[in-house]
Amino acid sequence: MLPVKQRFNLPDGIIYLDGNSLGPVPVGTSERVSRVVNDQWGPNLIRSWNIDGWMAQPVDVASRVGRLIGAPAGTCVLGDTLSIKVHQALSAALQMRRQRRLVLSDSGNFPSDLYMAQGLIDQLDQGYELQVVEPEEIENAINDKVAAVMLTHVDYRTGRMHDMNAITRKAHESGAVMILDLAHSAGAVEVDVTQDQCDFAIGCTYKYLNAGPGAPAFIYVRPDLTETIDPALSGWLGHAAPFEFEPGYRPAASIERFRVGTPAVLQVAALDAAMDAWEGIDMPEVRAASIELSELFIEEIQARVPQLELASPRDASLRGSQVSFHFSEGYAAMQAIIARGVIGDFRAPDIMRFGLTPLFIDKDDIRAAIDIIEEVMRDKLWDKPEYKTKSKVT
Amino acid sequence: MLPVKQRFNLPDGIIYLDGNSLGPVPVGTSERVSRVVNDQWGPNLIRSWNIDGWMAQPVDVASRVGRLIGAPAGTCVLGDTLSIKVHQALSAALQMRRQRRLVLSDSGNFPSDLYMAQGLIDQLDQGYELQVVEPEEIENAINDKVAAVMLTHVDYRTGRMHDMNAITRKAHESGAVMILDLAHSAGAVEVDVTQDQCDFAIGCTYKYLNAGPGAPAFIYVRPDLTETIDPALSGWLGHAAPFEFEPGYRPAASIERFRVGTPAVLQVAALDAAMDAWEGIDMPEVRAASIELSELFIEEIQARVPQLELASPRDASLRGSQVSFHFSEGYAAMQAIIARGVIGDFRAPDIMRFGLTPLFIDKDDIRAAIDIIEEVMRDKLWDKPEYKTKSKVT
Repeated sequence: MLPVKQRFNLPDGIIYLDGNSLGPVPVGTSERVSRVVNDQWGPNLIRSWNIDGWMAQPVDVASRVGRLIGAPAGTCVLGDTLSIKVHQALSAALQMRRQRRLVLSDSGNFPSDLYMAQGLIDQLDQGYELQVVEPEEIENAINDKVAAVMLTHVDYRTGRMHDMNAITRKAHESGAVMILDLAHSAGAVEVDVTQDQCDFAIGCTYKYLNAGPGAPAFIYVRPDLTETIDPALSGWLGHAAPFEFEPGYRPAASIERFRVGTPAVLQVAALDAAMDAWEGIDMPEVRAASIELSELFIEEIQARVPQLELASPRDASLRGSQVSFHFSEGYAAMQAIIARGVIGDFRAPDIMRFGLTPLFIDKDDIRAAIDIIEEVMRDKLWDKPEYKTKSKVT
Repeated sequence: MLPVKQRFNLPDGIIYLDGNSLGPVPVGTSERVSRVVNDQWGPNLIRSWNIDGWMAQPVDVASRVGRLIGAPAGTCVLGDTLSIKVHQALSAALQMRRQRRLVLSDSGNFPSDLYMAQGLIDQLDQGYELQVVEPEEIENAINDKVAAVMLTHVDYRTGRMHDMNAITRKAHESGAVMILDLAHSAGAVEVDVTQDQCDFAIGCTYKYLNAGPGAPAFIYVRPDLTETIDPALSGWLGHAAPFEFEPGYRPAASIERFRVGTPAVLQVAALDAAMDAWEGIDMPEVRAASIELSELFIEEIQARVPQLELASPRDASLRGSQVSFHFSEGYAAMQAIIARGVIGDFRAPDIMRFGLTPLFIDKDDIRAAIDIIEEVMRDKLWDKPEYKTKSKVT
């Protein structure tokens, strides 16, 4: 769909519809990571922190991610994992609304976000409460008791997409802080955190951004808020002068105050290489291509594989860059499909999920995938014991 | 000193006495990381989490680190950064001693540990207090108001080493929880967290363990405590069944409950390769070699470079695996020494620091380094403007 498929190393004989879980290897990644090991760390040793720019990369490389979500340079920083970023954002939000005790989320949020929120609430032990409503009830549940609305933009199971502009407006009208998880949005759909006036946006980079397993997370903070927040995870690299080794913490004046510890330099290098694969690509064209692919996918499945019940919204404007289907034997069916070279994934209890990633998936891939899915479902090829044994991760 | 220097890629013309800050590249690292990218992530994509063991590595590889600190397999887990591990351990300790409000540390602790503790205390807003005493006052300051004693075993500036066995005994007699930061101990000195009955031990792996920039941190939890703790950073990978995506958090029964988010697979691979360089090496022989090196270093400096005042304990049993000196122009002097190929580092306000790492440093290196240090100091080669301008990281 986009003329950049050659920017990825895709294994022969595989149609990869799981780039929403772990993106494939961009062609430059291996060489970039090797260069860090052999041409930087090797000869320059400790000096690489300065001369190879390692210390500055969490902000520098974050700006490349920021371009895809409407975040100006200097408003995002890389580090840690998305779960840690949830803690940072929610801690900050509660600090901003000290008179309020409600954290509002929905059942479509990724479980780790809810776990981290509950963990923070329990840890604080100050009467906070996590209220989890159904996705369609969010707007009505926002009131002046809510300190923070914390949502994942695109549902990891169904691909249902929130209208973040409307929700953020409602949150702000009620005086609540808006925290937006872009795990399934960055590089997948059009997002403009600036225009939407989002307060905090967080996300991972190993899905649609293709930065590899364990790639660093990012946090965006609305620029006028940054200096008002005392970071809860006040690690040395968020200090105004980390290498002065002062006894007391003084937060950096910039987005750097959301840094915690030493950056994962190899993973940052892989992210930087992955962002090369995004060069010259704008989100409107990605979104248009994604919708074309998902419309084709849904039409073909509905016409040829009636056993699968659409779990995603039929209206493309309400859907992220994946399509999901309910099927009671979804786990086994997905294993059988994977065994035939089409990789999607399964999410409990019965969701078969297919990620559509137009940087490296085109219409021919979708048509070939549908042929295989149709065959597996029509001939019940999933009905074998070896497909029904669950592995630890799918 | 140890016959394993060939296990490292050391640049020609450099004597590297900063392995206590960032260890050099083990020979297998580049190949191992490339293999993860090209032979695992590339062809196996999402399936690597299972078939290449990525999901299990944070515990599997941690046991290789554990061997060097007296931690049995299954009592350590990798993840995040050391600062995050401080937060996890201290949160747990405060949870274990709810009636107490004092966190005790010393001025020799690494600043990030103190920053994180203060950040947690401020965040909790429940009347906790961080008391920071001088290192020699620690034992006397422990009383029944102290919830947690939180110390770095070996001082990052001077190399002064605490008697952790004695302090832990005193802490336990007073009912306090012991948190031990092993950043400058793991792979440097003999530590036995089991014998010392330490409650929590944390550390990084990019110093003496040579796992590379941004390598994962580790946390050890005393086995009988593990299941009693509700993790404050309750991320999905600490869940008993992360891939069931349950709405509520249920901590894993094992050390895995101290996992948070997705592991940094490339960095874990580099750590695993680094641990290959530790194969067959036991800490008593490392410690004996380290003491030989440091005694030689101190004797030669004291005989030939009287301008440098020893900042480390003269008694080897009180000293870690580094030697440090006070010098008023220490920053410039260190730059001049580095310019001549001997890499140590500087720590404010006036500490010149040299790490002794017997896996790849021998007596000939020390003698050659002393010649250069003597020349720089004798001829005041440091007295040039270019050596006096501070860079961001040293």
